[in-house]
Amino acid sequence: MTLERRRNILKYLRENLWVNLAIIGLALLSVGLLVYELSADLLIEQVAFIHTLDLIIAMIFLLDFGAGLYLSESRKIYFKQNWPDLLASIPITGGIYRSFRVLRLLRLIRVVRIIARIRRVAVVADKIADNSSKYIYIASITATVILAGAVSFFSVEFGPNPNVANFFDAVWWAVVTATTVGYGDIFPITWEGRLIGMVLMFFGIGLVGTTAGLVGNHFLNRRP
Amino acid sequence: MTLERRRNILKYLRENLWVNLAIIGLALLSVGLLVYELSADLLIEQVAFIHTLDLIIAMIFLLDFGAGLYLSESRKIYFKQNWPDLLASIPITGGIYRSFRVLRLLRLIRVVRIIARIRRVAVVADKIADNSSKYIYIASITATVILAGAVSFFSVEFGPNPNVANFFDAVWWAVVTATTVGYGDIFPITWEGRLIGMVLMFFGIGLVGTTAGLVGNHFLNRRP
Amino acid sequence: MTLERRRNILKYLRENLWVNLAIIGLALLSVGLLVYELSADLLIEQVAFIHTLDLIIAMIFLLDFGAGLYLSESRKIYFKQNWPDLLASIPITGGIYRSFRVLRLLRLIRVVRIIARIRRVAVVADKIADNSSKYIYIASITATVILAGAVSFFSVEFGPNPNVANFFDAVWWAVVTATTVGYGDIFPITWEGRLIGMVLMFFGIGLVGTTAGLVGNHFLNRRP
Amino acid sequence: MTLERRRNILKYLRENLWVNLAIIGLALLSVGLLVYELSADLLIEQVAFIHTLDLIIAMIFLLDFGAGLYLSESRKIYFKQNWPDLLASIPITGGIYRSFRVLRLLRLIRVVRIIARIRRVAVVADKIADNSSKYIYIASITATVILAGAVSFFSVEFGPNPNVANFFDAVWWAVVTATTVGYGDIFPITWEGRLIGMVLMFFGIGLVGTTAGLVGNHFLNRRP
Repeated sequence: MTLERRRNILKYLRENLWVNLAIIGLALLSVGLLVYELSADLLIEQVAFIHTLDLIIAMIFLLDFGAGLYLSESRKIYFKQNWPDLLASIPITGGIYRSFRVLRLLRLIRVVRIIARIRRVAVVADKIADNSSKYIYIASITATVILAGAVSFFSVEFGPNPNVANFFDAVWWAVVTATTVGYGDIFPITWEGRLIGMVLMFFGIGLVGTTAGLVGNHFLNRRP
Repeated sequence: MTLERRRNILKYLRENLWVNLAIIGLALLSVGLLVYELSADLLIEQVAFIHTLDLIIAMIFLLDFGAGLYLSESRKIYFKQNWPDLLASIPITGGIYRSFRVLRLLRLIRVVRIIARIRRVAVVADKIADNSSKYIYIASITATVILAGAVSFFSVEFGPNPNVANFFDAVWWAVVTATTVGYGDIFPITWEGRLIGMVLMFFGIGLVGTTAGLVGNHFLNRRP
Repeated sequence: MTLERRRNILKYLRENLWVNLAIIGLALLSVGLLVYELSADLLIEQVAFIHTLDLIIAMIFLLDFGAGLYLSESRKIYFKQNWPDLLASIPITGGIYRSFRVLRLLRLIRVVRIIARIRRVAVVADKIADNSSKYIYIASITATVILAGAVSFFSVEFGPNPNVANFFDAVWWAVVTATTVGYGDIFPITWEGRLIGMVLMFFGIGLVGTTAGLVGNHFLNRRP
Repeated sequence: MTLERRRNILKYLRENLWVNLAIIGLALLSVGLLVYELSADLLIEQVAFIHTLDLIIAMIFLLDFGAGLYLSESRKIYFKQNWPDLLASIPITGGIYRSFRVLRLLRLIRVVRIIARIRRVAVVADKIADNSSKYIYIASITATVILAGAVSFFSVEFGPNPNVANFFDAVWWAVVTATTVGYGDIFPITWEGRLIGMVLMFFGIGLVGTTAGLVGNHFLNRRP
């Protein structure tokens, strides 16, 4: 393949709306599967089915990463910019879980994998933002960070924390934390949950700062 | 009627102080009626009386919307800008409530209707702001959003939530949330209440940002 | 007296460091007396002594206001700018309290009187700020507002609220509220306390905004 | 020694990476020793060992301060800028503790000493910031303030406060407070703890303001 052709295909893969929507859809499906597996009492066959689905998603992410790496002009730069996509495609199935028996660590790996997948939503938003408004961009990043925070929080706190009864509780907690409201009706009790909380809190400060910066800029550009 | 005359009547309807005050008064009366109906143990005749009053208010809003639509130069643009006024005038009476028996959804419709009415307060504030200070404008918007948040919160949380005993509790909660203080003495327990809370929280971040922007701008313009 | 002389004496009264320090000292003494009277179980003679002291302070404030009014060039403008000083000098003694028996309202009047006195601290800070840094000015205003919030909160919540055991609890609450942290260990339970809380919260948003504006301005002026 | 030589040695002591890393390491070791001594049930010999270690650290800080004072061109200016380093090297051993028996005050002295040591981390960050990004500088200051807040809070609240079970609880509290989230799961109950909390809260407001200023500046410089 000529360099020109490779560049065109890569551009298509990265900028085509349907490819991006499919990737976002798969990322959200991952979230749904993890939440469903953690919160419902499932039969062993159902777990196996979910793990197979997750394996397929991982394969698609691996394929996407591999294709990008093959097609890119500089593999080193591509790897540097897209290594989270490799994390997103670690193919861990139910069988491996049982043999290792280090469940807590594996749960963490799964969360990292899903966050790496959710990250793609922000990457797509970044591209759209070049052509459109800053406000859409900030809204997408905020939604992505809150979703990532909620799914991580849910994975580590559902079970140990009696105040977290379903995934919407985790979303509510993530919003209450990232906006620095902090009612205290739900708060992390595991140290992993607290680390996730700290990240969300500092993101929240950044969000207030960015909003203030945007609004300030808006006033400066409009008035003179 | 000539175009000129229609334009003049419409301008009068939209800019006359007494018409605007009447509309704001009716909007606040709606809030009062809803709060009173929800929090007091009423006889069937009293409920009927309130619903009749509400029907009259809805008719006035419908009339106002209809007159505006008839008098406007472009009906399409008018509809696009003022469709919430149509929501504000849905005439649902007590009789219809009972026949449908989908009470929760209907309660939501009533809240939407009342928020659409409260919105008029912000629209009037927007007009006044053209001639006067930005600070009055922001204060009006803030008051409107907090009132809308409080009345929505009261409608969905009064009853299920033991911490919400009267409408002032809901106002207190709305202020504590929109300023991102978040004591946690009152917090939503229904998912509708949480959605309302999320909207108020993000509005609160915007409020801090706007205040920061205004103050920053003030320092920039004054000092040089 | 010639206009020139009157102006000079007024200037001396308003700008002399020792006069200002004495006024601030009297304002803080008022706070101390109110807090002490409310929180300690006092004998009837001790209450009488405190009321006498407070009467003397009120007289000094009245004298200061009267002298300013007499010496000013335009009495109308002076009254417009300094009417809170008149509030600060309402001479209500213990005897009057008992005869009226509308204790809650009277408590509110006393709080208003003390806030009007504390206001003088901010007025002095405003004058100092003309000659010195903006940061000192903002710090003084913040300290004044928090002190005023704490003393008002203490007056209405000490007694009804079991979480407010001493004046330092009220100061702690005022800081936690004005910084929008809002732990929820102490929160108002009376409606007067909630109104005070709302004022402090909105002041807190303004404080964050002002800090952001100052820092933003600082970066803008320094970097180019 | 010539002035030139003294200046060179001082510059080496202050700017050499390894010297700075050693000082930061000793500061963090101090934190660790204090936390360990307070939270573990130790034998009398172990306490003695920790105190000896702390004495050695104090000696090194004293030596560093003394060397700097000796080598500096103007001893007066050096003292003015570095007096917290002298606080950091007060050599209080276990024996002195027991003879005085004013344990609470001594605990406070130790905290002041450790905060003075942690301060060196910020000083080093300040130097690095001259050559590198503002963001690294703000992050270092934030980390230093939160660490200092956590260790102070831990020293005064561990024991009296049943919600503070280990040092990580104190770090969590410090982050929740400095970001103005304020869940209320952990809050100070001693007045020293509350004072520490107030400092952290106002630092938090400054942090939001600084972030807003930086972001606002970023938007201003980028867009034109």
